[in-house]
Amino acid sequence: MNKLAVVKIGGNIIEDALALQSFLTDFSQMQGAKILVHGGGKKATAMAKQMDIPVQMVEGRRITDTQNLDIITMLYGGKINKNIVAQLQNLGCNALGLSGADGNAIQAIKRPVKTIDYGFVGDVVGVNADLFQMLLKGEYTPVCCAITHDQKGQLLNTNADTIAATLAQNLSQYFKVSLWYCFEKQGVLENIEDENSLIETINPKKYNKLKKEQVVHSGIIPKIDNCFEALANGVNEVKIGAPKMIAGISQHTTLKLEDE
Amino acid sequence: MNKLAVVKIGGNIIEDALALQSFLTDFSQMQGAKILVHGGGKKATAMAKQMDIPVQMVEGRRITDTQNLDIITMLYGGKINKNIVAQLQNLGCNALGLSGADGNAIQAIKRPVKTIDYGFVGDVVGVNADLFQMLLKGEYTPVCCAITHDQKGQLLNTNADTIAATLAQNLSQYFKVSLWYCFEKQGVLENIEDENSLIETINPKKYNKLKKEQVVHSGIIPKIDNCFEALANGVNEVKIGAPKMIAGISQHTTLKLEDE
Repeated sequence: MNKLAVVKIGGNIIEDALALQSFLTDFSQMQGAKILVHGGGKKATAMAKQMDIPVQMVEGRRITDTQNLDIITMLYGGKINKNIVAQLQNLGCNALGLSGADGNAIQAIKRPVKTIDYGFVGDVVGVNADLFQMLLKGEYTPVCCAITHDQKGQLLNTNADTIAATLAQNLSQYFKVSLWYCFEKQGVLENIEDENSLIETINPKKYNKLKKEQVVHSGIIPKIDNCFEALANGVNEVKIGAPKMIAGISQHTTLKLEDE
Repeated sequence: MNKLAVVKIGGNIIEDALALQSFLTDFSQMQGAKILVHGGGKKATAMAKQMDIPVQMVEGRRITDTQNLDIITMLYGGKINKNIVAQLQNLGCNALGLSGADGNAIQAIKRPVKTIDYGFVGDVVGVNADLFQMLLKGEYTPVCCAITHDQKGQLLNTNADTIAATLAQNLSQYFKVSLWYCFEKQGVLENIEDENSLIETINPKKYNKLKKEQVVHSGIIPKIDNCFEALANGVNEVKIGAPKMIAGISQHTTLKLEDE
Protein backbone atom coordinates (compact mmCIF):
# COMPACT_ATOMS: atom_id res chain seq x y z
CA MET A 1 0.00 0.00 0.00
CA ASN A 2 1.41 3.38 -1.00
CA LYS A 3 1.75 6.15 1.54
CA LEU A 4 -0.32 9.32 1.42
CA ALA A 5 0.10 12.46 3.52
CA VAL A 6 -2.95 14.67 4.07
CA VAL A 7 -1.72 18.00 5.42
CA LYS A 8 -4.00 20.71 6.78
CA ILE A 9 -2.89 24.30 7.35
CA GLY A 10 -4.91 26.94 9.15
CA GLY A 11 -5.40 30.66 9.05
CA ASN A 12 -2.26 31.57 10.99
CA ILE A 13 -0.08 30.30 8.12
CA ILE A 14 -2.35 31.61 5.35
CA GLU A 15 -2.26 35.11 6.84
CA ASP A 16 1.53 35.33 7.10
CA ALA A 17 3.15 35.45 3.64
CA LEU A 18 6.61 34.44 4.91
CA ALA A 19 5.28 31.59 7.04
CA LEU A 20 3.24 30.39 4.07
CA GLN A 21 6.22 30.48 1.73
CA SER A 22 8.34 28.57 4.24
CA PHE A 23 5.59 26.00 4.73
CA LEU A 24 5.04 25.54 0.98
CA THR A 25 8.77 25.01 0.47
CA ASP A 26 8.74 22.23 3.09
CA PHE A 27 5.50 20.80 1.70
CA SER A 28 6.86 20.70 -1.85
CA GLN A 29 9.77 18.61 -0.56
CA MET A 30 7.63 15.97 1.16
CA GLN A 31 8.15 12.71 -0.69
CA GLY A 32 5.33 10.64 -2.12
CA ALA A 33 1.63 11.24 -2.62
CA LYS A 34 0.21 14.20 -0.71
CA ILE A 35 -2.84 16.41 -0.41
CA LEU A 36 -2.99 19.91 1.04
CA VAL A 37 -6.15 21.22 2.75
CA HIS A 38 -6.30 24.89 3.66
CA GLY A 39 -8.64 27.09 5.63
CA GLY A 40 -8.92 30.81 5.07
CA GLY A 41 -8.44 32.46 8.42
CA LYS A 42 -9.61 35.94 9.21
CA LYS A 43 -9.24 37.33 5.70
CA ALA A 44 -12.93 36.72 4.99
CA THR A 45 -13.95 38.95 7.88
CA ALA A 46 -11.55 41.69 6.76
CA MET A 47 -12.85 41.50 3.22
CA ALA A 48 -16.49 41.63 4.31
CA LYS A 49 -15.62 44.80 6.21
CA GLN A 50 -13.90 46.28 3.15
CA MET A 51 -16.99 45.52 1.05
CA ASP A 52 -19.42 46.81 3.70
CA ILE A 53 -20.99 43.39 4.10
CA PRO A 54 -22.17 42.59 7.63
CA VAL A 55 -20.74 39.47 9.30
CA GLN A 56 -23.11 37.78 11.73
CA MET A 57 -21.54 35.69 14.48
CA VAL A 58 -23.46 33.41 16.86
CA GLU A 59 -21.59 31.78 19.75
CA GLY A 60 -18.27 32.57 18.08
CA ARG A 61 -19.32 31.01 14.80
CA ARG A 62 -19.78 32.83 11.52
CA ILE A 63 -23.21 32.65 9.92
CA THR A 64 -22.67 32.09 6.20
CA ASP A 65 -25.28 34.09 4.31
CA THR A 66 -25.21 34.47 0.51
CA GLN A 67 -22.90 37.48 0.52
CA ASN A 68 -20.45 35.92 2.96
CA LEU A 69 -20.48 32.67 0.97
CA ASP A 70 -19.51 34.72 -2.09
CA ILE A 71 -16.60 36.22 -0.14
CA ILE A 72 -15.48 32.78 1.04
CA THR A 73 -15.73 31.41 -2.50
CA MET A 74 -13.70 34.32 -3.85
CA LEU A 75 -11.05 34.17 -1.14
CA TYR A 76 -10.69 30.48 -0.31
CA GLY A 77 -11.57 29.06 -3.74
CA GLY A 78 -10.02 31.91 -5.71
CA LYS A 79 -7.28 34.09 -4.31
CA ILE A 80 -5.84 31.82 -1.59
CA ASN A 81 -6.20 28.52 -3.45
CA LYS A 82 -4.83 29.77 -6.79
CA ASN A 83 -1.89 31.59 -5.20
CA ILE A 84 -0.93 28.49 -3.18
CA VAL A 85 -1.15 26.40 -6.37
CA ALA A 86 0.97 28.89 -8.34
CA GLN A 87 3.60 28.98 -5.58
CA LEU A 88 3.74 25.19 -5.39
CA GLN A 89 4.12 25.03 -9.18
CA ASN A 90 7.14 27.30 -8.83
CA LEU A 91 8.53 24.88 -6.23
CA GLY A 92 8.26 21.94 -8.62
CA CYS A 93 5.13 20.47 -7.04
CA ASN A 94 2.39 19.80 -9.59
CA ALA A 95 -0.44 21.21 -7.47
CA LEU A 96 -4.06 21.29 -8.62
CA GLY A 97 -6.65 23.30 -6.69
CA LEU A 98 -10.05 21.89 -5.88
CA SER A 99 -13.22 22.96 -4.18
CA GLY A 100 -15.56 20.16 -3.22
CA ALA A 101 -17.66 20.92 -6.31
CA ASP A 102 -14.75 20.33 -8.71
CA GLY A 103 -15.04 16.82 -10.07
CA ASN A 104 -17.62 16.25 -7.30
CA ALA A 105 -14.58 15.95 -5.01
CA ILE A 106 -16.33 16.47 -1.66
CA GLN A 107 -20.07 16.21 -1.20
CA ALA A 108 -21.94 17.73 1.72
CA ILE A 109 -25.39 18.62 2.96
CA LYS A 110 -26.43 22.02 4.24
CA ARG A 111 -26.29 21.81 8.03
CA PRO A 112 -29.81 21.16 9.31
CA VAL A 113 -31.29 24.00 11.34
CA LYS A 114 -31.74 23.10 15.01
CA THR A 115 -31.50 26.10 17.32
CA ILE A 116 -29.15 28.07 15.06
CA ASP A 117 -29.28 28.48 11.28
CA TYR A 118 -25.64 28.61 10.25
CA GLY A 119 -26.62 29.43 6.67
CA PHE A 120 -24.64 27.90 3.79
CA VAL A 121 -22.50 25.62 5.93
CA GLY A 122 -21.86 22.06 4.82
CA ASP A 123 -21.52 18.80 6.72
CA VAL A 124 -19.44 16.41 4.63
CA VAL A 125 -21.22 13.26 3.44
CA GLY A 126 -18.92 11.84 0.78
CA VAL A 127 -15.65 11.93 -1.13
CA ASN A 128 -15.01 11.11 -4.79
CA ALA A 129 -12.11 8.76 -4.11
CA ASP A 130 -11.78 7.94 -7.84
CA LEU A 131 -10.88 11.58 -8.56
CA PHE A 132 -8.20 11.71 -5.86
CA GLN A 133 -6.78 8.34 -6.92
CA MET A 134 -6.61 9.47 -10.55
CA LEU A 135 -4.90 12.76 -9.66
CA LEU A 136 -2.42 11.15 -7.24
CA LYS A 137 -1.61 8.39 -9.73
CA GLY A 138 -0.91 11.13 -12.28
CA GLU A 139 1.46 12.71 -9.74
CA TYR A 140 -0.72 15.75 -9.19
CA THR A 141 -1.01 17.21 -5.69
CA PRO A 142 -4.60 18.17 -4.86
CA VAL A 143 -4.91 21.45 -2.94
CA CYS A 144 -8.36 21.56 -1.34
CA CYS A 145 -10.04 24.68 -0.08
CA ALA A 146 -12.69 24.47 2.62
CA ILE A 147 -15.68 24.61 0.30
CA THR A 148 -17.98 21.71 -0.55
CA HIS A 149 -21.21 21.40 -2.55
CA ASP A 150 -24.59 19.73 -2.13
CA GLN A 151 -24.64 18.28 -5.69
CA LYS A 152 -27.69 20.48 -6.38
CA GLY A 153 -25.77 23.60 -7.38
CA GLN A 154 -25.12 25.02 -3.92
CA LEU A 155 -21.61 25.69 -2.63
CA LEU A 156 -21.17 25.27 1.14
CA ASN A 157 -18.66 26.70 3.60
CA THR A 158 -17.09 23.75 5.42
CA ASN A 159 -14.68 23.21 8.28
CA ALA A 160 -11.20 22.53 6.90
CA ASP A 161 -10.25 20.17 9.77
CA THR A 162 -13.26 18.03 8.97
CA ILE A 163 -12.42 18.01 5.26
CA ALA A 164 -8.87 16.85 6.00
CA ALA A 165 -10.10 14.12 8.38
CA THR A 166 -12.76 12.90 5.94
CA LEU A 167 -10.29 12.77 3.03
CA ALA A 168 -7.73 10.92 5.15
CA GLN A 169 -10.33 8.48 6.34
CA ASN A 170 -11.85 7.80 2.96
CA LEU A 171 -8.54 7.40 1.16
CA SER A 172 -7.19 5.02 3.81
CA GLN A 173 -8.96 2.29 1.84
CA TYR A 174 -6.32 2.80 -0.86
CA PHE A 175 -3.33 4.32 0.92
CA LYS A 176 -1.48 4.13 4.22
CA VAL A 177 -2.50 7.63 5.33
CA SER A 178 -0.79 10.08 7.66
CA LEU A 179 -2.92 13.06 8.63
CA TRP A 180 -0.99 16.20 9.61
CA TYR A 181 -2.59 19.17 11.34
CA CYS A 182 -0.32 22.20 11.25
CA PHE A 183 -1.20 25.00 13.65
CA GLU A 184 0.36 27.74 15.77
CA LYS A 185 1.55 25.53 18.66
CA GLN A 186 4.17 22.77 18.88
CA GLY A 187 1.35 20.28 19.44
CA VAL A 188 -1.08 19.52 22.24
CA LEU A 189 0.32 21.22 25.35
CA GLU A 190 -0.25 20.42 29.04
CA ASN A 191 0.02 24.13 29.68
CA ILE A 192 -1.07 26.29 26.75
CA GLU A 193 1.31 29.06 27.88
CA ASP A 194 4.33 26.73 27.87
CA GLU A 195 5.62 25.38 24.57
CA ASN A 196 7.83 22.98 26.55
CA SER A 197 4.82 21.14 27.98
CA LEU A 198 4.24 19.18 24.78
CA ILE A 199 2.35 15.91 25.05
CA GLU A 200 4.19 13.69 22.60
CA THR A 201 1.63 10.94 22.23
CA ILE A 202 -2.05 10.64 23.01
CA ASN A 203 -4.15 7.48 22.97
CA PRO A 204 -7.88 7.35 23.76
CA LYS A 205 -7.33 6.48 27.43
CA LYS A 206 -4.92 9.36 27.93
CA TYR A 207 -7.25 11.69 26.02
CA ASN A 208 -10.12 10.91 28.41
CA LYS A 209 -7.88 11.60 31.36
CA LEU A 210 -6.69 14.91 29.87
CA LYS A 211 -10.27 15.97 29.22
CA LYS A 212 -11.37 14.96 32.73
CA GLU A 213 -8.53 16.98 34.24
CA GLN A 214 -9.35 19.85 31.85
CA VAL A 215 -5.75 19.88 30.61
CA VAL A 216 -6.76 20.10 26.95
CA HIS A 217 -8.57 23.35 26.25
CA SER A 218 -11.94 23.55 24.53
CA GLY A 219 -10.56 24.87 21.22
CA ILE A 220 -8.59 21.75 20.49
CA ILE A 221 -11.18 19.16 21.54
CA PRO A 222 -13.11 19.06 18.23
CA LYS A 223 -9.76 18.71 16.43
CA ILE A 224 -8.72 15.73 18.59
CA ASP A 225 -12.17 14.19 18.28
CA ASN A 226 -11.84 14.35 14.49
CA CYS A 227 -8.41 12.74 14.75
CA PHE A 228 -9.63 9.77 16.78
CA GLU A 229 -12.58 9.32 14.47
CA ALA A 230 -10.16 9.25 11.53
CA LEU A 231 -7.92 6.72 13.32
CA ALA A 232 -10.93 4.55 14.13
CA ASN A 233 -11.78 4.62 10.43
CA GLY A 234 -8.46 3.45 9.07
CA VAL A 235 -6.06 6.41 9.15
CA ASN A 236 -2.63 5.16 10.18
CA GLU A 237 -1.44 8.12 12.26
CA VAL A 238 -2.33 11.72 13.06
CA LYS A 239 0.23 14.40 13.84
CA ILE A 240 -0.54 17.78 15.36
CA GLY A 241 2.11 20.48 15.57
CA ALA A 242 3.85 23.47 14.11
CA PRO A 243 4.29 23.64 10.31
CA LYS A 244 7.99 22.78 10.60
CA MET A 245 7.05 19.24 11.68
CA ILE A 246 6.44 18.31 8.04
CA ALA A 247 10.14 18.92 7.41
CA GLY A 248 10.91 16.58 10.33
CA ILE A 249 12.62 19.31 12.33
CA SER A 250 10.19 20.03 15.12
CA GLN A 251 8.45 17.96 17.76
CA HIS A 252 4.73 17.39 17.61
CA THR A 253 1.93 15.36 19.15
CA THR A 254 1.22 11.97 17.61
CA LEU A 255 -2.23 10.49 18.08
CA LYS A 256 -2.72 6.77 17.83
CA LEU A 257 -5.03 3.96 18.84
CA GLU A 258 -3.15 1.62 21.13
CA ASP A 259 -3.92 -1.72 22.66
CA GLU A 260 -3.84 -1.11 26.40
CA MET B 1 -10.16 10.00 -33.26
CA ASN B 2 -12.66 11.04 -30.61
CA LYS B 3 -14.46 14.34 -30.88
CA LEU B 4 -13.88 17.22 -28.49
CA ALA B 5 -15.86 20.45 -28.20
CA VAL B 6 -14.10 23.51 -26.77
CA VAL B 7 -16.78 26.07 -25.92
CA LYS B 8 -16.05 29.66 -24.92
CA ILE B 9 -18.59 31.94 -23.27
CA GLY B 10 -18.15 35.64 -22.70
CA GLY B 11 -19.20 38.25 -20.20
CA ASN B 12 -22.67 38.80 -21.60
CA ILE B 13 -23.69 35.27 -20.56
CA ILE B 14 -21.76 35.33 -17.26
CA GLU B 15 -23.51 38.54 -16.23
CA ASP B 16 -27.04 37.31 -16.87
CA ALA B 17 -28.02 34.57 -14.38
CA LEU B 18 -30.90 33.27 -16.52
CA ALA B 19 -28.87 33.25 -19.74
CA LEU B 20 -26.09 31.43 -17.90
CA GLN B 21 -28.45 28.82 -16.51
CA SER B 22 -29.96 28.25 -19.95
CA PHE B 23 -26.52 27.96 -21.50
CA LEU B 24 -25.25 25.55 -18.84
CA THR B 25 -28.32 23.34 -19.35
CA ASP B 26 -27.56 23.16 -23.09
CA PHE B 27 -23.85 22.66 -22.43
CA SER B 28 -24.49 19.81 -19.97
CA GLN B 29 -26.44 18.04 -22.72
CA MET B 30 -23.71 18.24 -25.37
CA GLN B 31 -22.57 14.71 -26.06
CA GLY B 32 -18.96 13.58 -25.82
CA ALA B 33 -15.80 15.17 -24.49
CA LYS B 34 -16.02 18.91 -23.89
CA ILE B 35 -14.22 21.83 -22.27
CA LEU B 36 -15.74 25.13 -21.17
CA VAL B 37 -13.71 28.35 -21.17
CA HIS B 38 -15.21 31.42 -19.55
CA GLY B 39 -14.32 35.07 -19.33
CA GLY B 40 -15.50 37.30 -16.54
CA GLY B 41 -17.14 40.30 -18.13
CA LYS B 42 -17.60 43.59 -16.39
CA LYS B 43 -17.95 42.18 -12.90
CA ALA B 44 -14.29 42.83 -12.15
CA THR B 45 -14.72 46.54 -12.83
CA ALA B 46 -17.83 46.68 -10.62
CA MET B 47 -16.05 44.88 -7.82
CA ALA B 48 -12.98 47.13 -8.03
CA LYS B 49 -15.35 50.07 -7.64
CA GLN B 50 -17.04 48.46 -4.61
CA MET B 51 -13.63 47.91 -3.01
CA ASP B 52 -12.36 51.40 -3.88
CA ILE B 53 -9.61 50.00 -6.06
CA PRO B 54 -8.78 52.15 -9.09
CA VAL B 55 -9.04 50.55 -12.54
CA GLN B 56 -6.59 51.91 -15.07
CA MET B 57 -7.57 51.60 -18.72
CA VAL B 58 -5.27 52.36 -21.67
CA GLU B 59 -6.74 52.32 -25.18
CA GLY B 60 -9.80 50.46 -23.94
CA ARG B 61 -7.72 47.79 -22.23
CA ARG B 62 -7.54 47.12 -18.53
CA ILE B 63 -4.13 47.41 -16.89
CA THR B 64 -3.82 44.48 -14.48
CA ASP B 65 -1.99 45.70 -11.39
CA THR B 66 -1.63 43.54 -8.23
CA GLN B 67 -4.93 44.62 -6.72
CA ASN B 68 -6.87 44.10 -9.94
CA LEU B 69 -5.21 40.71 -10.45
CA ASP B 70 -6.47 39.75 -6.98
CA ILE B 71 -9.98 40.78 -7.96
CA ILE B 72 -9.77 38.78 -11.18
CA THR B 73 -8.45 35.75 -9.30
CA MET B 74 -11.25 36.01 -6.76
CA LEU B 75 -13.98 36.53 -9.33
CA TYR B 76 -12.93 34.44 -12.34
CA GLY B 77 -11.04 31.72 -10.48
CA GLY B 78 -13.30 31.73 -7.41
CA LYS B 79 -16.87 32.94 -7.55
CA ILE B 80 -17.65 32.56 -11.26
CA ASN B 81 -15.70 29.34 -11.84
CA LYS B 82 -16.91 27.53 -8.73
CA ASN B 83 -20.55 28.53 -9.26
CA ILE B 84 -20.45 27.33 -12.88
CA VAL B 85 -18.92 24.05 -11.72
CA ALA B 86 -21.54 23.60 -8.97
CA GLN B 87 -24.36 24.32 -11.43
CA LEU B 88 -22.97 21.86 -13.97
CA GLN B 89 -22.66 19.21 -11.24
CA ASN B 90 -26.37 19.72 -10.53
CA LEU B 91 -27.04 19.17 -14.26
CA GLY B 92 -25.23 15.83 -14.23
CA CYS B 93 -22.04 17.12 -15.88
CA ASN B 94 -18.91 16.20 -13.92
CA ALA B 95 -17.27 19.62 -14.23
CA LEU B 96 -13.86 20.44 -12.75
CA GLY B 97 -12.66 24.03 -12.57
CA LEU B 98 -9.14 25.00 -13.56
CA SER B 99 -6.98 28.06 -13.69
CA GLY B 100 -3.88 27.75 -15.81
CA ALA B 101 -1.83 27.17 -12.64
CA ASP B 102 -3.85 24.09 -11.63
CA GLY B 103 -1.94 21.04 -12.75
CA ASN B 104 0.18 23.43 -14.81
CA ALA B 105 -2.78 23.44 -17.23
CA ILE B 106 -1.91 26.59 -19.20
CA GLN B 107 1.49 28.24 -19.15
CA ALA B 108 2.09 31.83 -20.12
CA ILE B 109 4.64 34.61 -19.99
CA LYS B 110 3.99 38.09 -18.69
CA ARG B 111 3.37 40.25 -21.73
CA PRO B 112 6.60 42.07 -22.60
CA VAL B 113 6.45 45.84 -22.16
CA LYS B 114 6.64 47.72 -25.47
CA THR B 115 4.86 51.07 -25.39
CA ILE B 116 2.28 50.00 -22.78
CA ASP B 117 2.83 47.95 -19.61
CA TYR B 118 -0.35 45.90 -19.30
CA GLY B 119 0.75 44.60 -15.90
CA PHE B 120 0.06 40.99 -14.96
CA VAL B 121 -1.26 39.93 -18.34
CA GLY B 122 -0.23 36.62 -19.82
CA ASP B 123 0.53 35.50 -23.35
CA VAL B 124 -0.06 31.75 -23.58
CA VAL B 125 3.02 29.64 -24.37
CA GLY B 126 1.94 26.09 -23.57
CA VAL B 127 -0.76 23.62 -22.56
CA ASN B 128 -0.45 20.52 -20.35
CA ALA B 129 -2.19 18.20 -22.80
CA ASP B 130 -1.59 15.19 -20.50
CA LEU B 131 -3.76 16.79 -17.82
CA PHE B 132 -6.65 17.48 -20.21
CA GLN B 133 -6.39 13.99 -21.71
CA MET B 134 -6.44 12.41 -18.25
CA LEU B 135 -9.47 14.45 -17.16
CA LEU B 136 -11.40 13.89 -20.39
CA LYS B 137 -10.65 10.15 -20.33
CA GLY B 138 -11.99 10.10 -16.77
CA GLU B 139 -15.17 11.78 -18.11
CA TYR B 140 -14.53 15.02 -16.29
CA THR B 141 -15.41 18.30 -18.01
CA PRO B 142 -12.69 20.94 -17.50
CA VAL B 143 -14.04 24.45 -16.86
CA CYS B 144 -11.22 26.91 -17.49
CA CYS B 145 -11.18 30.48 -16.25
CA ALA B 146 -9.12 33.11 -18.03
CA ILE B 147 -6.13 32.96 -15.70
CA THR B 148 -2.75 31.45 -16.52
CA HIS B 149 0.59 31.30 -14.69
CA ASP B 150 4.24 31.84 -15.52
CA GLN B 151 5.43 28.66 -13.70
CA LYS B 152 7.36 30.95 -11.34
CA GLY B 153 4.52 31.60 -8.93
CA GLN B 154 2.84 34.46 -10.77
CA LEU B 155 -0.80 34.26 -11.89
CA LEU B 156 -1.59 36.16 -15.09
CA ASN B 157 -4.81 37.63 -16.47
CA THR B 158 -5.29 36.17 -19.95
CA ASN B 159 -7.68 36.61 -22.84
CA ALA B 160 -10.32 33.87 -22.74
CA ASP B 161 -10.65 33.71 -26.56
CA THR B 162 -6.94 33.01 -26.83
CA ILE B 163 -7.12 30.34 -24.13
CA ALA B 164 -9.96 28.59 -25.97
CA ALA B 165 -8.11 28.75 -29.30
CA THR B 166 -4.85 27.51 -27.79
CA LEU B 167 -6.55 24.59 -26.04
CA ALA B 168 -8.44 23.64 -29.21
CA GLN B 169 -5.27 23.84 -31.25
CA ASN B 170 -3.12 21.88 -28.84
CA LEU B 171 -5.66 19.13 -28.21
CA SER B 172 -6.30 18.66 -31.94
CA GLN B 173 -3.30 16.34 -31.85
CA TYR B 174 -5.46 13.91 -29.89
CA PHE B 175 -9.06 14.80 -30.76
CA LYS B 176 -11.15 15.99 -33.70
CA VAL B 177 -11.81 19.43 -32.22
CA SER B 178 -14.71 21.83 -32.72
CA LEU B 179 -14.17 25.28 -31.27
CA TRP B 180 -17.34 27.17 -30.36
CA TYR B 181 -17.36 30.91 -29.58
CA CYS B 182 -20.64 31.95 -27.97
CA PHE B 183 -21.36 35.66 -27.92
CA GLU B 184 -24.20 38.16 -28.08
CA LYS B 185 -24.79 38.04 -31.85
CA GLN B 186 -26.06 35.27 -34.16
CA GLY B 187 -22.58 35.09 -35.70
CA VAL B 188 -20.52 37.33 -37.94
CA LEU B 189 -22.92 39.85 -39.47
CA GLU B 190 -22.63 41.85 -42.71
CA ASN B 191 -24.46 44.63 -40.90
CA ILE B 192 -23.93 44.68 -37.16
CA GLU B 193 -27.39 46.24 -36.67
CA ASP B 194 -29.15 43.47 -38.57
CA GLU B 195 -29.25 39.98 -37.09
CA ASN B 196 -30.55 38.70 -40.45
CA SER B 197 -27.32 39.62 -42.22
CA LEU B 198 -25.54 36.54 -40.90
CA ILE B 199 -22.54 35.31 -42.86
CA GLU B 200 -22.92 31.53 -42.66
CA THR B 201 -19.43 30.51 -43.70
CA ILE B 202 -16.12 32.31 -43.93
CA ASN B 203 -12.93 31.03 -45.52
CA PRO B 204 -9.63 32.96 -45.62
CA LYS B 205 -10.33 34.44 -49.05
CA LYS B 206 -13.76 35.67 -48.03
CA TYR B 207 -12.30 37.00 -44.77
CA ASN B 208 -9.74 39.11 -46.61
CA LYS B 209 -12.50 40.50 -48.81
CA LEU B 210 -14.69 41.32 -45.78
CA LYS B 211 -11.80 43.06 -44.08
CA LYS B 212 -10.93 45.03 -47.22
CA GLU B 213 -14.54 46.17 -47.56
CA GLN B 214 -14.60 46.92 -43.81
CA VAL B 215 -17.68 44.72 -43.41
CA VAL B 216 -16.32 43.00 -40.29
CA HIS B 217 -15.87 45.47 -37.45
CA SER B 218 -12.69 45.87 -35.48
CA GLY B 219 -13.98 44.12 -32.34
CA ILE B 220 -14.38 40.78 -34.05
CA ILE B 221 -11.14 40.78 -36.08
CA PRO B 222 -8.88 39.41 -33.29
CA LYS B 223 -11.49 36.70 -32.66
CA ILE B 224 -11.53 35.65 -36.32
CA ASP B 225 -7.74 35.84 -36.53
CA ASN B 226 -7.55 33.44 -33.59
CA CYS B 227 -10.01 31.13 -35.31
CA PHE B 228 -8.01 30.91 -38.52
CA GLU B 229 -4.82 30.36 -36.59
CA ALA B 230 -6.53 27.50 -34.74
CA LEU B 231 -7.77 26.03 -38.03
CA ALA B 232 -4.31 26.31 -39.56
CA ASN B 233 -3.02 24.39 -36.55
CA GLY B 234 -5.32 21.41 -36.75
CA VAL B 235 -8.70 22.46 -35.33
CA ASN B 236 -11.44 20.87 -37.43
CA GLU B 237 -14.03 23.65 -37.36
CA VAL B 238 -14.81 26.91 -35.59
CA LYS B 239 -18.32 28.14 -34.92
CA ILE B 240 -19.26 31.66 -33.85
CA GLY B 241 -22.77 32.50 -32.72
CA ALA B 242 -25.36 32.87 -30.01
CA PRO B 243 -25.23 30.43 -27.06
CA LYS B 244 -28.25 28.52 -28.39
CA MET B 245 -26.11 27.23 -31.28
CA ILE B 246 -24.64 24.59 -28.98
CA ALA B 247 -28.12 23.06 -28.69
CA GLY B 248 -28.29 23.03 -32.51
CA ILE B 249 -31.26 25.40 -32.60
CA SER B 250 -29.79 28.61 -33.91
CA GLN B 251 -27.76 29.63 -36.94
CA HIS B 252 -24.16 30.65 -36.62
CA THR B 253 -21.06 31.39 -38.64
CA THR B 254 -18.79 28.48 -39.47
CA LEU B 255 -15.16 29.18 -40.22
CA LYS B 256 -13.15 26.75 -42.23
CA LEU B 257 -10.09 26.45 -44.41
CA GLU B 258 -11.18 25.55 -47.93
CA ASP B 259 -9.38 24.61 -51.06
CA GLU B 260 -10.36 27.28 -53.55
